Amino acid sequence: MPELNRRKFVGALALTGFTVDAVANNAAEAADDASPGASAQGAKNVTRTLARYVLNAQPADAPEAVRKEARRTLLNWLGCAVGGSRHETVDNAIAAMAPFAGAKQSAVYGRKERLDVMTAALVNGISSHIFDFDDTHLRTIIHPAGPVASAILALAEYHPVSGRDFLNALVLGVEVECRIGNAVYPAHYDAGWHITGSAGVFGAAAAAGKLLRLNEQQMLWALGIAAVQPVGLREMFGTMTKSFHAGRAAQNGLTAAMLASRNFTSSEQGIEARYGWANVLSTTRNYAEITENLGKTYEVSINTYKPFACGIVVHPSIDGAIRLRNKYKITPDQVERVDLKVHRLVFELTGNKEPQNGLGGKFSVYHAVAAALVEGAAGEAQFSDRTVRDATVVALRRRVTATLDPSVVEDQAHVSITLKDGRTLDEFVEHAVGSVKNPMSDRDLENKFQALAQGVLPAAQTRRLIDLLWRVEELGNAADIAKAAAAA
Amino acid sequence: MPELNRRKFVGALALTGFTVDAVANNAAEAADDASPGASAQGAKNVTRTLARYVLNAQPADAPEAVRKEARRTLLNWLGCAVGGSRHETVDNAIAAMAPFAGAKQSAVYGRKERLDVMTAALVNGISSHIFDFDDTHLRTIIHPAGPVASAILALAEYHPVSGRDFLNALVLGVEVECRIGNAVYPAHYDAGWHITGSAGVFGAAAAAGKLLRLNEQQMLWALGIAAVQPVGLREMFGTMTKSFHAGRAAQNGLTAAMLASRNFTSSEQGIEARYGWANVLSTTRNYAEITENLGKTYEVSINTYKPFACGIVVHPSIDGAIRLRNKYKITPDQVERVDLKVHRLVFELTGNKEPQNGLGGKFSVYHAVAAALVEGAAGEAQFSDRTVRDATVVALRRRVTATLDPSVVEDQAHVSITLKDGRTLDEFVEHAVGSVKNPMSDRDLENKFQALAQGVLPAAQTRRLIDLLWRVEELGNAADIAKAAAAA
Repeated sequence: MPELNRRKFVGALALTGFTVDAVANNAAEAADDASPGASAQGAKNVTRTLARYVLNAQPADAPEAVRKEARRTLLNWLGCAVGGSRHETVDNAIAAMAPFAGAKQSAVYGRKERLDVMTAALVNGISSHIFDFDDTHLRTIIHPAGPVASAILALAEYHPVSGRDFLNALVLGVEVECRIGNAVYPAHYDAGWHITGSAGVFGAAAAAGKLLRLNEQQMLWALGIAAVQPVGLREMFGTMTKSFHAGRAAQNGLTAAMLASRNFTSSEQGIEARYGWANVLSTTRNYAEITENLGKTYEVSINTYKPFACGIVVHPSIDGAIRLRNKYKITPDQVERVDLKVHRLVFELTGNKEPQNGLGGKFSVYHAVAAALVEGAAGEAQFSDRTVRDATVVALRRRVTATLDPSVVEDQAHVSITLKDGRTLDEFVEHAVGSVKNPMSDRDLENKFQALAQGVLPAAQTRRLIDLLWRVEELGNAADIAKAAAAA
Repeated sequence: MPELNRRKFVGALALTGFTVDAVANNAAEAADDASPGASAQGAKNVTRTLARYVLNAQPADAPEAVRKEARRTLLNWLGCAVGGSRHETVDNAIAAMAPFAGAKQSAVYGRKERLDVMTAALVNGISSHIFDFDDTHLRTIIHPAGPVASAILALAEYHPVSGRDFLNALVLGVEVECRIGNAVYPAHYDAGWHITGSAGVFGAAAAAGKLLRLNEQQMLWALGIAAVQPVGLREMFGTMTKSFHAGRAAQNGLTAAMLASRNFTSSEQGIEARYGWANVLSTTRNYAEITENLGKTYEVSINTYKPFACGIVVHPSIDGAIRLRNKYKITPDQVERVDLKVHRLVFELTGNKEPQNGLGGKFSVYHAVAAALVEGAAGEAQFSDRTVRDATVVALRRRVTATLDPSVVEDQAHVSITLKDGRTLDEFVEHAVGSVKNPMSDRDLENKFQALAQGVLPAAQTRRLIDLLWRVEELGNAADIAKAAAAA
C-alpha cells in the first residue's frame, strides 16, 4: 500500500481548467455524421441540428398563422397563470421558496409579490398548470406554454427583449420541447414520465438561450444541462406536485441557459448520446421527429386550449354530455344511466370512480360527466370540493359507466344517456371542442381569460392585458406584459 | 358544440383547496399492506417505511463506529469542497446563479461569497465533486456526501441545529440515498443515470426534512417531491455538468423538504408507485434493500474515500502501478509495456485512450496508470492539462493495454509491467487502497484534507477546521463548521 502523504495530494491544488478541447473534439466527430432522422443509438447530430435551427430562426421566418397561434398560446397560458395565482398550491410554494429568493426582478402574475427570475419562473409555471386548464399539444399531451412562457416572461423583466423576439422564442421553445416529445411519445409517457416537465425543460432552455443570444457552443451546452434535469412523474397527478413539474421545468431550463451563458460545459449530444436523454428516458425514439422539416412545420400551430378545467382526455365525454343536456333539456332526475365509449387513456388517467375532493374530480371521467350533466359546464367550479361532494352529482356519477372502444381516438367519445322514460339519447363527438379540428375561437379564449382573471385582477386591467397580449409583436419591451399581469 | 361564455368559466375563480383527504385515503390503503421487501410493483409501504425510520432514528441509535465513519465522510467531503472551490467550474456556476441568489445565508466553503441556502447547496455540491475525489459507496458508485452534506450544512446556517442532530441527519441521508440506490443498482446505473444525482436527491430531502422536523405526512411528501427531480446522466462525465449533478441533487432535495414543510402535497408512494421513481427510472428493483434491517445496518459504514483524484474504478490499477514502481524503482524509460486485467466498468467509464486535457485524463485508465508510473502519484496534478499532454506520459500511456477479466471484481486489478530488459513484474491488487477492506486511515484523510486546502485556506485555519470536524457531535451549532470553512 503506497503511503499517503501531503506531497501526494499537492496536486489537488492545481486548478485544472476545463478547456473546450475535449468537447470540441467530440463535435468534430459528430459533424461527420449528418444523418438527421437516424433512429438508432448511432445518431450524432440531433442536438446540434436542433440548436442551429433555434439560433438561426428569425421572427419573420414563421408564417403569420403560426405566430397567431403562438399569440393564442400566450394568451391562454397567462389567463391560466393569473387564474391559478391565488390557489393554495401557489401560496405554499411562495411560502417555501421566498425566504431564499433574490432580488425582486420578476412579477408573479395575478399577485403583488416580485421574486428573482428563477423563483418567479417556478411559481408562475405552477400557477399556469394548477387548474389543468392550460394548453395541450395533443400528439404528446405536453402542456407546452407552462415551461417555456414561464421561463421567458420572467427572464424578459431582467433581460429586455422586444415583443417580436419574445414571441419568436416562444415559438421556438414550443418547437423544441414538442419535437423532442414527438420523438419519444408514447413510450416515454407510458413509462410514467410527466412529459410536460421531462421534455419541457428543453423548451425552456432553448427559448431562454435564444433570448440570451447564446452562441452555438453554448446552446449545445444549454440543451445538455437541460437533459440532466427532467422533472415529473405521472404518480404525482392529483397532488400539488403535478403543477410543480411545469414550474420546475421552466426554472431548470432557465438555469441551463444561464449556466451555458457563463460557459458551464456539458455534452454536445445531450439528446442522442448513448447515455443521453432519449436513450435513458425512453425505450423508443425517432430522431427524424426532431431533425426533419425544421422551419417547415411548427408544433405550436397544432396547439390546443381547453374549454374544460380538467385533463384533456375527458373533454370529448364532457362535450358530448353537455351537447345532449342542451339538446334535450335533460335534468339529473330524468337520467337512468350514462354509458361512455372512450379511448384507453381515459381509464389510465381519469379512472377514479370515487373522487374525494375537487382535485380528485379532475381525474375522474365519472365525476366530470356527472357534473357537466348536472351543472351544464365543466369549469373550475365543477371541480371544486363542493361539487365533487354534491349529493346529486355523486348519485349520478355512480350511474356512469365507461367502456374502452379501440375505434375511438383521443378527441372522440360516444355518449349514450338512458332516461328513466326508456329513451336512449346518443351523441358521437367526432372532434371535441378545443381540439385541433374544432378549436376555440379568439373570443372563446378571451372569455376564458376574463373568467379566470375575474376576482384576481380588475376587469379594466384584464381588458388592457388581453389587448396587450394580442399586440405582443408590436411591443418594444416584452416585460410590459409581465408588469401588466401583476396585481396592483 | 356548446357555446363558450364567461359564465361557464366563472368556476375558474373558485380556489379549490387541495385537502389531504385524497392522499390520506391512499395512505390508509397503503397501510393495509405491510410488506417490506416486496419486489414487485404491488409494493406499497416502501416510502412510508423509510420515512418512519428517518423520523424515529435518534442520534444515539447509531453505534459509535457508524458515527465515526460519518465524521470521516464529513471530513473527506468538506476537504474536497474546499479544494474544489476555486475551480473554473465553481466560478462559472457562481457567475451564472449569483444574480438570482437571495440573502447571504450560507457560506461557500473555501471562498468569501455567501449565498442563499439553496444556491449555496448547489455551489458547494459542485465544489465537492469537481475533482472526482469525494467519497464512494462502492455497492452503487454513489458519492453519498455531495448531495446530503451540501444540503444540510447550508441549511444549518439558516435553521440552527446541534452537531449531534447534524451528524445524525448525515447518517440518515446517506442511508436513504444508498438504500434506494441498492434497490435499483446496477440496472438504473447501467441505463445511463448518474446515480449520485438521481438517487442522491432522496438523501438530501430526507436529511433536510429530518432537521426541519417534518411530520410523517410531510416527510412522505418530501420524498415524493424528491422523486420527481432526479438529476444526472452519465453522458455528462468529463464535463462541468457531472459535478452539477451532485450540487443540484442537494438543492433539489432541500427544495423538496422546504416545500413539504409548507404542506406542498405529493404522492405518499413516490418510490414504489406504479409510476413512481423506482418503476420509471429502473428496469429492476428490490425493495427489500430499502425496507429491511433499518437501524441494524448502516450504509455509511461501508463508505470509502479516494486516495487518487479520479474515478474509483481506476484505483486498483493505479495502486498496483505505484506498488510496482516503488518496489522495483521503475523509471519510465525502462518500461516496454503495461498490461492490465480489470473489471468491465473500467472500460465503460475510463476507456478514453487519448484524453486531450486534465479532465479527460480522469476518464482514461491508460493515462492514469502512465501518470502514476511516471510521477509516483495520482493526485490532482496528475490529472492536470500539463500532465495529460506531457510527452513522457503520452508515450507511456500508448504502451498500456487493458483486458477485461471476469474474475476481477471492482476493487481489484492485475498489473503486469514488462521491462525492456525482458523482466515481467506482476502485482495483484486484492483490495485497492481506499476500499472498504483497505481503508484510508484518519491520518491519511487529514493529509488529504490539508493538501486539498493548501493555497485555499491558511494552514492554521485548516488545522482548526479539521479539529472542529472531528468534534462535530460536541458542537452546539453545526453552522460553526460552515463558518470555519469560509475564506476570510
